[in-house]
Amino acid sequence: MPFLKITVTLKKSVEDAEGQSVVKALKLLGYENIKDVRTGKVYFIELENGSIEEGREFCSKLLSNPVINECKVELDGN
Amino acid sequence: MPFLKITVTLKKSVEDAEGQSVVKALKLLGYENIKDVRTGKVYFIELENGSIEEGREFCSKLLSNPVINECKVELDGN
Repeated sequence: MPFLKITVTLKKSVEDAEGQSVVKALKLLGYENIKDVRTGKVYFIELENGSIEEGREFCSKLLSNPVINECKVELDGN
Repeated sequence: MPFLKITVTLKKSVEDAEGQSVVKALKLLGYENIKDVRTGKVYFIELENGSIEEGREFCSKLLSNPVINECKVELDGN
């Protein structure tokens, strides 16, 4: 069965407070080579007859806020 | 600059309540073809001289709980 992988991230112009916390924590753990961290949510949606177009609808209707989020939709499987 | 992409998901044996909420919501929106949804967090970590091995350390030391989570580490860029 095919599945859609939808990755929802913050737009680059929006500050990612969680990512900045991860930067701080990794530096405290001794990883001085960290430059930046951005975070996101990922949804693996198993469905019948899925399409990229349908994935985009899921994004705009439920999974993301278009003011602050970007969605990346990928179709896997057969 | 290279970056590590780390995807943290729940193990298959652990119930994903958030994923089940998304299934319900999508069905309410009329998408009857949805079979299952699993969710996860994704971290895009920009760093100097990164390696997969280092990404696995970030997982085990900070980003995941080995009792319930699985980590997938990918290295991108140059």
